Amino acid sequence: MSKCKDYLNKMNLPGDLKKLTLNQCDKLCQDVRKMLIDTVSKNGGHLASNLGTVELSLAIHRVFSSPEDKIIWDVGHQAYTHKILTGRADQFHTLRQENGISGFCRPDESIHDAFISGHSSNSVSAALGIATAMKIQQNPHFAVAVLGDGAFTGGMVYEGLNNAGKSDTNLIIILNHNEMSISKNVGSVAKYLSNMRTKEGYHKTKSMVERALDKTPVVGNPLKKALKGSKNALKNVVLHSTMFEDLGLAFIGPIDGHNIEELEKGLNAAKALHRPVLVHVNTIKGKGYAPAEENPGEYHGVGSFEIATGNPDVVLADSFSSVFGKELTELGEQHKNICAVTAAMKYGTGLQYFAKAYPQRFFDVGIAEEHAVTFCGGLASMGMIPVFAVYSSFLQRGYDQLLHDLSICNTHVVIGVDRAGVVGDDGETHQGIFDVPFLTSIPNTTIYSPSCYEELRMCLKKAVLEDSGIVAVRYPRGNDKSNYNKSQINTSYEYHDNGNGVLIVTYGRLYNNVLSACEILRNRHIECDTLKLVKIFPIEEDIIDIISSYKLVFFFEESYYHGSISEKYAAVCSNIAPVAIDYFVKHGKVADLLDELNLSPKKMANQIEEFLSYEQ
Amino acid sequence: MSKCKDYLNKMNLPGDLKKLTLNQCDKLCQDVRKMLIDTVSKNGGHLASNLGTVELSLAIHRVFSSPEDKIIWDVGHQAYTHKILTGRADQFHTLRQENGISGFCRPDESIHDAFISGHSSNSVSAALGIATAMKIQQNPHFAVAVLGDGAFTGGMVYEGLNNAGKSDTNLIIILNHNEMSISKNVGSVAKYLSNMRTKEGYHKTKSMVERALDKTPVVGNPLKKALKGSKNALKNVVLHSTMFEDLGLAFIGPIDGHNIEELEKGLNAAKALHRPVLVHVNTIKGKGYAPAEENPGEYHGVGSFEIATGNPDVVLADSFSSVFGKELTELGEQHKNICAVTAAMKYGTGLQYFAKAYPQRFFDVGIAEEHAVTFCGGLASMGMIPVFAVYSSFLQRGYDQLLHDLSICNTHVVIGVDRAGVVGDDGETHQGIFDVPFLTSIPNTTIYSPSCYEELRMCLKKAVLEDSGIVAVRYPRGNDKSNYNKSQINTSYEYHDNGNGVLIVTYGRLYNNVLSACEILRNRHIECDTLKLVKIFPIEEDIIDIISSYKLVFFFEESYYHGSISEKYAAVCSNIAPVAIDYFVKHGKVADLLDELNLSPKKMANQIEEFLSYEQ
Repeated sequence: MSKCKDYLNKMNLPGDLKKLTLNQCDKLCQDVRKMLIDTVSKNGGHLASNLGTVELSLAIHRVFSSPEDKIIWDVGHQAYTHKILTGRADQFHTLRQENGISGFCRPDESIHDAFISGHSSNSVSAALGIATAMKIQQNPHFAVAVLGDGAFTGGMVYEGLNNAGKSDTNLIIILNHNEMSISKNVGSVAKYLSNMRTKEGYHKTKSMVERALDKTPVVGNPLKKALKGSKNALKNVVLHSTMFEDLGLAFIGPIDGHNIEELEKGLNAAKALHRPVLVHVNTIKGKGYAPAEENPGEYHGVGSFEIATGNPDVVLADSFSSVFGKELTELGEQHKNICAVTAAMKYGTGLQYFAKAYPQRFFDVGIAEEHAVTFCGGLASMGMIPVFAVYSSFLQRGYDQLLHDLSICNTHVVIGVDRAGVVGDDGETHQGIFDVPFLTSIPNTTIYSPSCYEELRMCLKKAVLEDSGIVAVRYPRGNDKSNYNKSQINTSYEYHDNGNGVLIVTYGRLYNNVLSACEILRNRHIECDTLKLVKIFPIEEDIIDIISSYKLVFFFEESYYHGSISEKYAAVCSNIAPVAIDYFVKHGKVADLLDELNLSPKKMANQIEEFLSYEQ
Repeated sequence: MSKCKDYLNKMNLPGDLKKLTLNQCDKLCQDVRKMLIDTVSKNGGHLASNLGTVELSLAIHRVFSSPEDKIIWDVGHQAYTHKILTGRADQFHTLRQENGISGFCRPDESIHDAFISGHSSNSVSAALGIATAMKIQQNPHFAVAVLGDGAFTGGMVYEGLNNAGKSDTNLIIILNHNEMSISKNVGSVAKYLSNMRTKEGYHKTKSMVERALDKTPVVGNPLKKALKGSKNALKNVVLHSTMFEDLGLAFIGPIDGHNIEELEKGLNAAKALHRPVLVHVNTIKGKGYAPAEENPGEYHGVGSFEIATGNPDVVLADSFSSVFGKELTELGEQHKNICAVTAAMKYGTGLQYFAKAYPQRFFDVGIAEEHAVTFCGGLASMGMIPVFAVYSSFLQRGYDQLLHDLSICNTHVVIGVDRAGVVGDDGETHQGIFDVPFLTSIPNTTIYSPSCYEELRMCLKKAVLEDSGIVAVRYPRGNDKSNYNKSQINTSYEYHDNGNGVLIVTYGRLYNNVLSACEILRNRHIECDTLKLVKIFPIEEDIIDIISSYKLVFFFEESYYHGSISEKYAAVCSNIAPVAIDYFVKHGKVADLLDELNLSPKKMANQIEEFLSYEQ
């Protein structure tokens, strides 16, 4: 392993990669694969997608010249080899650790990360912007977008392609075709691309037909008759080819994505065209590590695991996601109008139970949050009760649809907002800290933020069976670590009034931190009352009355401050000290990040103590 | 005109439309066209798109049975005939007037408006949701989405199609092909569809080829050789047909959209398939009214006009949009890195001046706000200064892209937020009252809200040349009615401290109303100080100090309350009475709507007077 690092360290990267022989390339790919497996088995991360792009990454850096040529990795969870080959082999062992390198592309991490990545399907638009700037600036370099077929389930790609086709730019779009996004891809585009994948002779055939037509003025009689003898008409029909050519792009492929020589030929051909081109590359997700090749879905994003067996170090017990999924499955038994919708996150959101029990009422729509929201609106308009389970940071894509297609008509749709709050290792693009601000800006919206499994079950049931309008139930990644007395839990709030002058308000899993903070303060002879919100929005008169009765109120909140619940209560009660998040949160362990954000028990306690000491 | 109304009034609509002869249909279409021209010439509204869909609307209601079959009109600005034919002929003269019928589809207006409409490209998703519910409910009816080729520039359509193809539902998608969205359509999809439009023989040819192949085992030699003699391979290449068939839909068309008989044949054929199908209908925007046929772009959305000449009743002077466009054009002269981007609103946003002067730096990306934002991010990453001019309510579509693709890297992109605040006649889906809440929830964002042309010019210049990150300059629809003393204007704030105990804070065009309110109050012997914000976000210490020095502060704001600027200041200053918007605002005249919202001069004055009387 360290030999490979030494080897890379001696090179001027990525330029010197061009000097390697094909044999040396193969050797390097083997070593990089080992490095990937070694690091991800320790740190967790995305494995299968990165094992699939080792040769592709090397070929790209041999054919193109980063940073003058700009490589834009869609989502970015397949860019580990790119990181290793652009001078980050030394730091690669710090992957996804606080102050270590990110699991996604970050322009502030390296000049070779040309654009931010994390959310799917934006790379064509970003690359077209870059290629267009190059054209205006008379810069002869290339913008190269690399995206998986999973990204093609997102509509934004088509907006990009629609503008790319006629752009006359040095734009190269590489379709990394592995037939998976996280789980198996869905929809007719996936089917279409798969058909293309197997047409190995497509490109060759097409050239031959073209040549044949050029040489032969007379074509077979029945066809000629049918097509009214027009060579052009025939050409149109016979050579009508890929959807991408319909969209005005040149097309090259399919290419074996694990054959460096073939990859380089294809990419060089693409370069030579000097016009927007799509290169179709077939790769195998998990390539080179048997457990990942066999189960690419399971090895998409993983925690640490044992290399020899592929077994995870920690077997996950229940999580908020699985509790959500199981409770919804129970509700679905009795209520035949409940539907479950996911945007390519069946397992991540715990919907596999519902999918298995009621396949006719389960819908995986691909990475298509906009469609998911409006599709739910259509279902709801017919009396169904749709439940869309989605990660907080991805729900951002459906903002207009929530507002326009659901809220105006007060349509009843339940949103399971998974990964709400600080998510951790995946960093800025995945933290769920904006759902409270953007959901509260949408009329007719109710938000619950349960602090434990039991509350989650109660809130989900109420959201589905009793509430109206948009009802969001938000819960964090991972499992429930609460151990407080659950005898009083409900879907509204829980107030512990022990006659103290200071009140601490919070919601969600932070309640556990608040209880620990109270312990710490008790040892310092400071007693606080507590108020745990469960239904956090709309804000309630009851809560205003409670808050207003205190001299000092601390409100701890795992949300971006502007648009937060603490800001809303502060706007009507003047005695609040809100502690919320006011910057993008990088990757790291959740507990460490919460500490930095002044939301750990100790920091909570310290802030309260400090404030009180000034008061005296 | 009234004869037609009488005629329709006697019918049981829309069912009785099926009883008409084709001759009666033609007569009805003529009369409906007259009604459209008559009403729109008085009330303003969408003309050209509605003149294009008269026959299509009638054919749809003869072939399908609303409300059991659900008709979903994308955008909805082509659904006037649908409204007339579903029992709203009597009210049609109230189009777009307060308490009158909406210019878009509203489920609360009629059972025949199956889904909310206003924003583009959502109809396939909504219709698929409805068709899916029908399938689950074993309901044999149809969901029919009607969308223009303009909607196909929005990515959401492809998310819908990707899921529709394999859905096994009674979903019928009607492509109303008129080659226009508002101005001429852009991009390669438009080109592709136009090619299809002219292939009149396409469908016929295809069947003939199919028959020919079935009958003829031997095909022409050169082709046969090229294709290795395989009939299936040939079939694949020869019969590879439309993009829609690639996506798993059946395809029917193109059909003459002004021929009722042909339309009915096509729609009946689509019904008979009982699977997702796309019907391609060619229509002429503006059909039947010469000025609109000749200039469909100008007659897309119009104010009142003289029918004989087509001349508008009011010739528009400068507007905030045109002042924005002209100032940007001036800036573009000296600063060659400024680019202008629009999502199909070149004229609406005043960018025609820039487009003419610097065609290489102007980009109309189609109805594709997501792409527009990220494309700007790509441009900016290469040192360009992109300015995206977009209506407030449509910018909602780019929320995730603003947050993910721009904000995290503090990318400098200027957003011209046009139609900010209450827009008026177009109603709930078009009011620009959410941009402040959602933009303030995005880190690294600065927002200006100028109150007059001069301030707009200053703010735009500062946003483009001096500021960093996302900089939004928001301004209302229409023209500047201000007549206050402009000697002190700047891009920060203007404070008039006359030593009074009450302060009124506001921003944007409401400042005019505040000044009028002060006049009214002065006559009632109440004097107020005023503070006009220009840079409204981030909130500023200066402003907090000023506000905190008053006993009572009224903050008037043309924004949804949750996430508003007044809420933000209220959260840090306890003496604020915020007056903002807390519900969806229907259509009507702006002045009337502002009065309802307690934001007219008189209502402002009354609220302040009333509050002070209680204080005493």
